Amino acid sequence: MNFITILGMSAAVCTTASFLPQALKTIRTRNTAGVSLYMYALFAFGTLLWFVYGILSKNIPIVAANGITLVFSLIILVYKIRYK
Amino acid sequence: MNFITILGMSAAVCTTASFLPQALKTIRTRNTAGVSLYMYALFAFGTLLWFVYGILSKNIPIVAANGITLVFSLIILVYKIRYK
Repeated sequence: MNFITILGMSAAVCTTASFLPQALKTIRTRNTAGVSLYMYALFAFGTLLWFVYGILSKNIPIVAANGITLVFSLIILVYKIRYK
Repeated sequence: MNFITILGMSAAVCTTASFLPQALKTIRTRNTAGVSLYMYALFAFGTLLWFVYGILSKNIPIVAANGITLVFSLIILVYKIRYK
């Protein structure tokens, strides 16, 4: 595995994992006043499109990364709608 | 341009543009109590890795999308650190 591939995989792990601390914080505090509804509505929709794109183009890393991110972003979106 | 390519481009536009309403909300309200520092630190770092990955692999869409997202996420990160 070359440097560029390792770099891309590291990038994917960071951007995918980054939504976990936000989801945990939102679940714990239920403080969503500063969280943008439009961001998470648009982001969750975009992640769903990436997920379908990954399935249709048979790209397992895209399916996996966006499947995980979709779950985290939907949790944040549901809390934003429920506790706004 | 086939359906899968259009799907992927739509996905990229949504996930990239989604950080704009969050950045604008954070600039306007300065309310970052519910925003996760760890998320934006990790996300901005991951986006920087994607940006470098795009340059090294000569992938213009990855450079463009992550360059834009990096700016938005750094704005949110700076506000989070400044107004926490």
